[in-house]
Order: sequence, then C-alpha cells, then structure tokens
Amino acid sequence: MAQQIKDPGIGEKFNARSGRVMNKDGSFNVRHSGWSFSRIHLFQYLIGVSWLQFNFILFIAFVITNMLYACLYLSMGDGALQNAASAGVTRFWDAVFFSAHTLTTVGYGNIYPMGFAANIVSATEAMTGLLGFAVATGLVYGRFSRPTAKMEYSKSAIIAPYHNKNALMFRIANARASLLMELHADVTFTYVEKLGDQFIRKYFLLPLERDNILYLSLSWTLVHPINEHSPLYNKTRKQLEDMKIEILVKLKGYDEGYGEHVHARFSYLLEDIVWGAKFLPTFHVADDGATVLDYNHISSYVKAELNPDYHAHVQGS
Amino acid sequence: MAQQIKDPGIGEKFNARSGRVMNKDGSFNVRHSGWSFSRIHLFQYLIGVSWLQFNFILFIAFVITNMLYACLYLSMGDGALQNAASAGVTRFWDAVFFSAHTLTTVGYGNIYPMGFAANIVSATEAMTGLLGFAVATGLVYGRFSRPTAKMEYSKSAIIAPYHNKNALMFRIANARASLLMELHADVTFTYVEKLGDQFIRKYFLLPLERDNILYLSLSWTLVHPINEHSPLYNKTRKQLEDMKIEILVKLKGYDEGYGEHVHARFSYLLEDIVWGAKFLPTFHVADDGATVLDYNHISSYVKAELNPDYHAHVQGS
Amino acid sequence: MAQQIKDPGIGEKFNARSGRVMNKDGSFNVRHSGWSFSRIHLFQYLIGVSWLQFNFILFIAFVITNMLYACLYLSMGDGALQNAASAGVTRFWDAVFFSAHTLTTVGYGNIYPMGFAANIVSATEAMTGLLGFAVATGLVYGRFSRPTAKMEYSKSAIIAPYHNKNALMFRIANARASLLMELHADVTFTYVEKLGDQFIRKYFLLPLERDNILYLSLSWTLVHPINEHSPLYNKTRKQLEDMKIEILVKLKGYDEGYGEHVHARFSYLLEDIVWGAKFLPTFHVADDGATVLDYNHISSYVKAELNPDYHAHVQGS
Amino acid sequence: MAQQIKDPGIGEKFNARSGRVMNKDGSFNVRHSGWSFSRIHLFQYLIGVSWLQFNFILFIAFVITNMLYACLYLSMGDGALQNAASAGVTRFWDAVFFSAHTLTTVGYGNIYPMGFAANIVSATEAMTGLLGFAVATGLVYGRFSRPTAKMEYSKSAIIAPYHNKNALMFRIANARASLLMELHADVTFTYVEKLGDQFIRKYFLLPLERDNILYLSLSWTLVHPINEHSPLYNKTRKQLEDMKIEILVKLKGYDEGYGEHVHARFSYLLEDIVWGAKFLPTFHVADDGATVLDYNHISSYVKAELNPDYHAHVQGS
Repeated sequence: MAQQIKDPGIGEKFNARSGRVMNKDGSFNVRHSGWSFSRIHLFQYLIGVSWLQFNFILFIAFVITNMLYACLYLSMGDGALQNAASAGVTRFWDAVFFSAHTLTTVGYGNIYPMGFAANIVSATEAMTGLLGFAVATGLVYGRFSRPTAKMEYSKSAIIAPYHNKNALMFRIANARASLLMELHADVTFTYVEKLGDQFIRKYFLLPLERDNILYLSLSWTLVHPINEHSPLYNKTRKQLEDMKIEILVKLKGYDEGYGEHVHARFSYLLEDIVWGAKFLPTFHVADDGATVLDYNHISSYVKAELNPDYHAHVQGS
Repeated sequence: MAQQIKDPGIGEKFNARSGRVMNKDGSFNVRHSGWSFSRIHLFQYLIGVSWLQFNFILFIAFVITNMLYACLYLSMGDGALQNAASAGVTRFWDAVFFSAHTLTTVGYGNIYPMGFAANIVSATEAMTGLLGFAVATGLVYGRFSRPTAKMEYSKSAIIAPYHNKNALMFRIANARASLLMELHADVTFTYVEKLGDQFIRKYFLLPLERDNILYLSLSWTLVHPINEHSPLYNKTRKQLEDMKIEILVKLKGYDEGYGEHVHARFSYLLEDIVWGAKFLPTFHVADDGATVLDYNHISSYVKAELNPDYHAHVQGS
Repeated sequence: MAQQIKDPGIGEKFNARSGRVMNKDGSFNVRHSGWSFSRIHLFQYLIGVSWLQFNFILFIAFVITNMLYACLYLSMGDGALQNAASAGVTRFWDAVFFSAHTLTTVGYGNIYPMGFAANIVSATEAMTGLLGFAVATGLVYGRFSRPTAKMEYSKSAIIAPYHNKNALMFRIANARASLLMELHADVTFTYVEKLGDQFIRKYFLLPLERDNILYLSLSWTLVHPINEHSPLYNKTRKQLEDMKIEILVKLKGYDEGYGEHVHARFSYLLEDIVWGAKFLPTFHVADDGATVLDYNHISSYVKAELNPDYHAHVQGS
Repeated sequence: MAQQIKDPGIGEKFNARSGRVMNKDGSFNVRHSGWSFSRIHLFQYLIGVSWLQFNFILFIAFVITNMLYACLYLSMGDGALQNAASAGVTRFWDAVFFSAHTLTTVGYGNIYPMGFAANIVSATEAMTGLLGFAVATGLVYGRFSRPTAKMEYSKSAIIAPYHNKNALMFRIANARASLLMELHADVTFTYVEKLGDQFIRKYFLLPLERDNILYLSLSWTLVHPINEHSPLYNKTRKQLEDMKIEILVKLKGYDEGYGEHVHARFSYLLEDIVWGAKFLPTFHVADDGATVLDYNHISSYVKAELNPDYHAHVQGS
C-alpha cells in the first residue's frame, strides 16, 4: 500500500503562486536569501559554477595577481628587474610578464630580478604561485573527475496495461559507459490538498514492483502498479490536474567507473504522463551473441489499450 | 519513551569544577596530556591548524630550506654558483635566491650551478623541491576541499506549545549552497545526578517527532515532545539548573556538493533555552513560484502561551 | 533453499544467438548503440582506456597544442620569438620548441618572447599549460591509484564430495599483497528455460555454506551444497548443457591497501566445471611458524569419488 | 553467550610449528609464495613500503632516468647540448644535469638543446617528466595523507573483578588528536583443540559489555564478562597455555580528521594477560572544567582481589 510520508524536507506549504517542486535538472525550486559574506564557501562555489565561469574567474585572478606583483616590482625602482635580453615592451608590461614567468614557474630568465627586494618578492611569488596553482589545478581536476550520474530517462511516464490492471511506468538507462551497480530508486508522489482555506502538500512513497536492481547494464523499467492502494487509483486526468501532482524520482547507485556512489534526481509533471501506452524494447541480441542496448529507444512507446478497471484514460486522453 | 543510554564515550565522572561537555564549536571539552613526540601525526596536525598558522609554517619551512641549501652551496667555494647576470646581492643571498629558483623550479638561469658538486646538489634540490611542494600543495588543496558541514542553527532552543502539550524545538538549515541529503539527527540529553557523595553524568537519547529528513533544502525544525516519558517533563527551570543539563546535537548527512558524508555537532545549555515561544516561518513562496528560504529568520521566534500540563514556564521565566 | 530471484538487471530475453552473460573479465556481454556525442564522458573515457591508448592520446594532444601555439607565434612575425642562443632549427620548429618549453614550464630561456603579443600569448600558454597538465597528471595518478581488486580464482569450479552429499566449489585468493576485509560473495546461477516458443533466462541465488569472510588472508573455498533445493540437484551434464547454465560470481570487500571497497566479478560456464574432484590445500605452516599461501595451487585438485545420491557424474564425465 | 564462529579467514589448521595468528603490528602471520611478476601491483607496493625504501626508489629512478637521457643526448653528437655558460663539468655530466633541469622543469637555460633531435627529446623529456613526477608526487602525498588509525592500547589485558564475577578487560585510546566516531570493536578468541591426531583452531566471538561507542574522546575500556558462557570460564592459566589462546581485536571507526573510516587490529597472547588487577583512571577534571586524558595511564593498573567463582587466578598467578 502506498505509504503516506512526512514532508521529505521540501515543505508542505502551497499557495496559488507555487511552481513545481523539483526543476527539470533535479535541483529543488528553492532560492536563498539572507546570505551573508560568511556563508559563501569558496570551494563549493568554484566546484559548482559552469566551466565558462570557472575559467573566467581563473583568468581574471591570474591577470590581477600579475598586475599587483608588477606594481610591486615597479615600486622598487628602475633596476629591480633586469633584461638579459629586451622583452621589447614597456617597463610595466616587462614587470607583468616577469611576474607571469615567476607565478607559473616557467622562468625563461630573459628578465630576472636584481637586488634584495626584487629577489625576495620573486622568491615569494614563485612559492605562492605554486600554492595558488595547486588550488587552481586541484579544482580543475576535482571538477573534471567529480563523480556524477547521468541517467537517460524516458521523456514520458506512461500508464500501461499491467497484469489485468494498469501501472505507471517510466524507464531509465545509464548514459555513461561505466557500470552502475546496486541501483536503488525512491519514487515520491506529491499533490496538493485543500485543508480549510489553506493548501497543503502531501507526500506518498509509490510502491514499485521492484525498487532496486543489481546491475544497470541495460535499461530498467520502473513499474508502479495502480491498484486500490495507489493514490493514482480511479483518478481522472482532470482530478490529477487539480491535485497539481508531481512524481519525484531519486536514484542512488555505485558507479564502477568512479568507484563511488552517485545520485540522480528528476521529476515528472502531469503533462509528462501518457495514458494508454506501452514501451518498445530497448535492446536486442546481435549476431555475435552480445546484447545491444539502443539509447534511441529509451522513450519509445506505442499506444496500448488500458484495462477497464481504470477509467481515467477514458476521460484523460 | 526517552531511552537512557550508556555514556557515549564522553565520561560519567562529574565534579564541582566540571565545565560544559561540548564546546560551542562542537569539539569536546577534553584535553590530552602525556603526549610523546611519537604521538604527533604531521598530516592531521597540518590539516587541522588554522590557515594563518599553516601559511606561517609553510613560509618558515621554505625560508629555512633555502637557507640550508644556501650554506651548502657556499661551502663549495666561490665558483659553485655563477652569475650569468649579477643578482646584485651578496654571495649568501645569491645562494639563497638560487636555491629558491631551484626549489620552486622557476629556474631563471641568471644564477646557475658550476662544477660537479653544485650541479648534483641543485639537481637533488629540484627533485626534493618537487616532492616537498607536492606535500605542501596537496595540503593546501586538501584543506581547501575538505568536506565539512556548516549548519546554521537557531541561537535558542525553545519550549513551544505542541499538540495540547509542549515540546522542545530548535531549528537548523544548511549554511552551504549545496544540497544535504539523508540527514540524520541524534539528540542526547545529559544531566548530573548525585549518587552517594559522587556526581554521575547520565545520558538520555531524546525521542524526536522525526529524526531524519530526506532533503535539507529548506530549514528543519527538530521537535522533542515533552510528555511523561521525557526527562524534561514537569521540571522547573531551577531543577534543570541543578541538573546542569546540556543538549548535545549530532547531525550526519550526505553533501551533494562534496559527494561525501559530513558531520556537525553543537550543544545547547540551559541558558540557551527560551520558555514559551514559537518559531516564525523561515520561507515563503516568491512571485515566480520558487520557495525562498531566509537565513535571517532561522532564530526568529515570538512569545507563545505554553500548554498548562507543563508548569515549568510559570516558574521558569 | 536456492532462491529464485528477479532479473538482476541483465535481461531475461534469450535467443539462439545469445552468447554468455558475463565475459571472462567480469564485464557484461552488452554493447551500446544510439550514443550521441553528448553521451561521451571524457573523464570516464580517459580513466577507462588502456595505458597505451592513454599515453598516445596525451602525446598527440601535447604535439598538436604545441603546433597550434607555434602557428600563433609565427603569425606575429619575425621578431616575436628571440633566440638568446640559436636553437639551430627552422623558425617553425623554434616556435614549436618554445611552446613546449612554455607549456611544460621548463622555460630554458634560450628562446624567449619579444613584444606585447608574444608575451601575452606565452603567459597565457604557461597558465593553461599548468591547468592542462593538472588534468593530465591527475589522470595519470588517478589511473595509477584507482582502487581495483585482482582476485585469483580457480580455473575450474568442481563438483566435490561434501558431507555425504556433493557440493559445487570454487576457490579464490587475493592476488594483491594488501589485506581484503569483510569480503562478501554473491553467486548467481542462471539458465535458460523454454516458455511456449520463447526462451527465458532464469536467475537463482545459490546458497553458500558461507557467503562472507572477515579476512581474506589465505584462500577461500566457496561451497554450494547440492541438495534437493539446489537447481543443480540431479541434473546430468547433458541437461545442464541444454540449460546453457552460467555461474556469475560477485565479490565485494574492503581493501586495506587502498582504504576503499573494491568489487570483482567473474563467471563459470559448464565447460569450466569438473565432476568428481577435490581441491588440494593451498597453504602450509613454515618452519618459522608463519602460514604460507602458495598461489600456484589455487586451481589444484585431484580426482575424488562423488557421493551416490548425485548421479550426474556417472553420465557427466 | 559466547558465539562460536567459523574461521574468519585465518585458517583452522594448526601444527607444532604454528606461531601466533596475528603479529604485534596487526598484520597476519602469513606469507605468500608462487607470486609471479604479473601479481606485483606497483601502486600498492609503493604505498606500502617504508619511507626510507620509498625515497630510495624515487632517488634511484631519478638518477637512472637522467643517465639514460644523458646517453641519448650524447649519442646526438657534440653540438646537441650547448652551454650558454659552461657548467664546468664533462660532457656526460653536462648531459645528465641538463636532463635533470628538464625532468624537474627547473630549466635554468645555462645548458640548452640545439638542433631538431635534441629539442624533440628535451620536449618529450619535459612532458614525461611532468607525468612521471605526477605519479611520484601523488604517491608522496598519498602516503602522507593515507587514512590510518593509531590506537593506544593497554600493554596488558587484565582479569578484573566485575559485578560479583570477573571480566577480561583492556583499554584503548586514540593516539591521534582527531576525533574517532562510531567506533566498533570485534573481539575474537581463538584457541587450539585436539581432534583425533590433528589440531584445529577454533574461533569464538567474545561478547562485550558494549561493543561500540559513539565518540572516542577519552579512553574506552572493553569488558568481556567471564560468566559460564565464556570460553575463559573456569579455565586455569595452565589450561589456557595448552590451548595456545590468542585474543584478536578489530576496531573500526570514522576519523573526523581524515573524514574517512579507519581500521585497527592487534592481539593479546596469554603472556599479555594479568590476573587480578584493575585499571587506574586515565582522566581527571582540570581547574578550567575541561577533562584531561593522560596517555601515560592507558596501561596503568593496580592489583585487585578477584571474585571467588573464578578460581583460575589462584593457580594462575
């Protein structure tokens, strides 16, 4: 029986303005306000931004650091930086480029420090350059190697005939080449109910024909049988529309490629549900005996007659 | 029913001098003595010290290493280091700066080694420099990327009306932008009891209305109902003061930003508990349908009438 | 009793062309089609390819990057790169080698940039070189340090006498020097059954005398007793051949050397099973009191009389 | 009741030569033979060797690589390496030192490559140097940051009076400054029994008064009550000697400093057990209210009268 659960941490309040609970990309439809400077966490920020933003930040930081060091070298007077061979640019740019040579430890030596102050600063710059680039390169690799799941999931959830009854079904596959093991699915059904003059979000855990799979080497069809215990039972499409339903899917598994657990989330709205369909196969056996999974068919379905005890499709489609 | 538990590893002894069990920052109020040199673990030390101390240690290590290598180069006599172009400093500082060029692998080449000994030493220094900086830069990034939780928690725990009774409540939110999943809370109540002429610390696990949440995308109010099974039931503020109570909170969850589990701890003393209050909401629905969490309201409460079966507030406030 | 289980994610379909379920190396006999460019995940690809391919990719990327930068330097005209000392090659190769000096931050300085444009490009190249090599070196080390299990397993599974009955046995040992702890084994038996005019794969979890071991410091013999509950009971070799049986083994344990969990998989086909044998010991006690495990004997067995209640061996061998 | 368990993977065979099961350092008293070259795993080897061996291997690898590259440069004839400024050594050593400058990317430039071949080789060397040092520096940091537990445990296990009976006790503390959480202990008792003309090792899991602790912020005394269910019950010291007993301890916990789980193992032999003693306290409350743990007292005990129902101590001491 579908088990009503407490708010899984998303909030029970609902009003006329409320949008979907979970965005298409699996993030929650939540914003934060009241952040102070002390709440910014540099690491999580730099791991989370897009590659474009990240590279831009790195580049700007590199330029500004070189500019600042250049000013420092210039402030030491004419002789602080010597040209074994002229760089052919103004003194300021000489200093900027010398700083870049030092920060990156490339150290061509065509420009070099002269005197105590310039040598001290350049030694310090080389050291801090190494440490700074440690953070930068660590972040580059950290972002690159970060364990993430990429699930291919069927564009629609379908209501399909299933054992004399009907069932809600959707299908997933691993979009990555690595093997996902011990995959576990949680499917939460949420809808809005009127309580007096307030609207309250309710949450149900949808029972699945099976909620885990040992290996996701092919595709996996998740099946929620719509029986008398299901919150979808005997509901017309119109009723579900008024209930502002949303089906939240959470997946967790062990990715052999990363050697770590990965998570994925996505949600289906009413508009993503197709009444009276059944999925087409996603795989076939090739001539060499191997099973071939075709990603192009993850979302493929054909129309199918629903079983009569569920009259929703009559009115629904 | 509130379950008495064994000492969770904090100790049962209590005497007149005993201070709080857990410090404000979640560390235990424990010191170590009898440490020998062999008990110092360099990695944990360098990961644990403040950034200021860490950078200071790195800088000193860099300076001393350069000084030592400089002495080595000087000991080889006048010709060991050659200036393609004078660095304009004394021989000693020439050697120090050459060492810095080598250790950081910046290698300008305006100073360079001459003869077998100096070349051997500089090659060794370049290699050990790479390995040494590997540790230094690894530590810098390790410190920077270390998975930690930062919980925003209400400054006060409150005694609030709750279902015809009252409850102890406090509220938390994730101060980080990343999503915390599968968050689990343990709330331990500790107090001191007189046993003969000794004082003994007792520990109770406080039952919560719910002790875990699937997603911490908004704030979470932890609720301990004060019923006849609660160790707080029918206790006056004065009694609780004599009991030297402390409420220890332990949180554990999976941080999607780090891809790792994180832990947080904090504790409330009697002075942090407010009688007869209720929390104000922390979030509202914005015009675009998103839910907005306001961090400024995590600790916000208003006065509220407590339910009568709990008379502590009469005497308490 | 042997428990029939649902398809563990491998698929139930079988036709005349179907090959083995799991390949010798533990991967599934599955291919993917319908991949689009967006499904390629660079990190998992570069972690997964062979060392030969990986090094080739790195080398080509290094060469191409240098070529491209060389063209950029050349496009700036004659004076952009200066030779403090001639490199003795053509202008194009001068530019390529200067680019290599910069990208690797080796920066000899015998060639150096002149003028604003060349300096800007070389500073940018040094910086991107550091970031690019961060990914390359991270991948080299990531591949090198990746937690993997290497199990030594007996070439044959044997049917051996066991407590008045018989049992299916095979033997494993850790081919690595590190200690495997909390090792857990899942043994799945799969065969093909005719259902109408279709063939369906069935899956059984084979009960083991024990399915986990605390330490794998020696060898471990996995024992499945063939009693009346076993799907192997009273089956002749011919019957098993028609059933196209396959025994899938999955191991999971904690590797103390890596400090991480590792997984291993392999499978036995009917041709790998020997009727009427028993394993020879793999270890003995040495003169100094230590136990010595000999890897050469993992697969060693001698012929042995099977117990009568199992008549398969009569026809089988 | 003490539960007899199956061989935890250590082996049941015992003969006159058999030594202790577990060495003092927690490793098993096991050696391997029959290793082939393909069984060597370079990463685990280099992570596992001592720092002295590791540094030696690195140094030798560095020297040999430079020698080989030097030969390559020399084979290109006189002009391949040019001295902008003489290094003052023979041509061979010039080549070795130039190789070192290139491999470490220090690149002073006082020696530099001339001609196509030398430039190609030096560019390749710089690139492979970066990748090679990536592995070397990764290993240095990997070894340095590797999560390990260091437990301080009492030199002796003691038989102490306990609730009108007696108990086997020993004591542990975390030798590291970081906090160990959710610590779990397994205590296995093993002894040798004569079966016909063979000796067989038996294993019992010793029930503990408590086998886990939430925080190891102080010391933890592990207590096995010696009641009629204990394999130690009513055994004289002489009997235990004949049984060649060994007490194997396994600890597992989460180290907050590393943010990872750590393991520790150690074992007590009969000679490490003291009859009739009780542990002295390890901690006291300081003037500032903090609890002070003194590592010097982990092993401290005083003589104590055992309870009469256990007569072993009469004969034992």
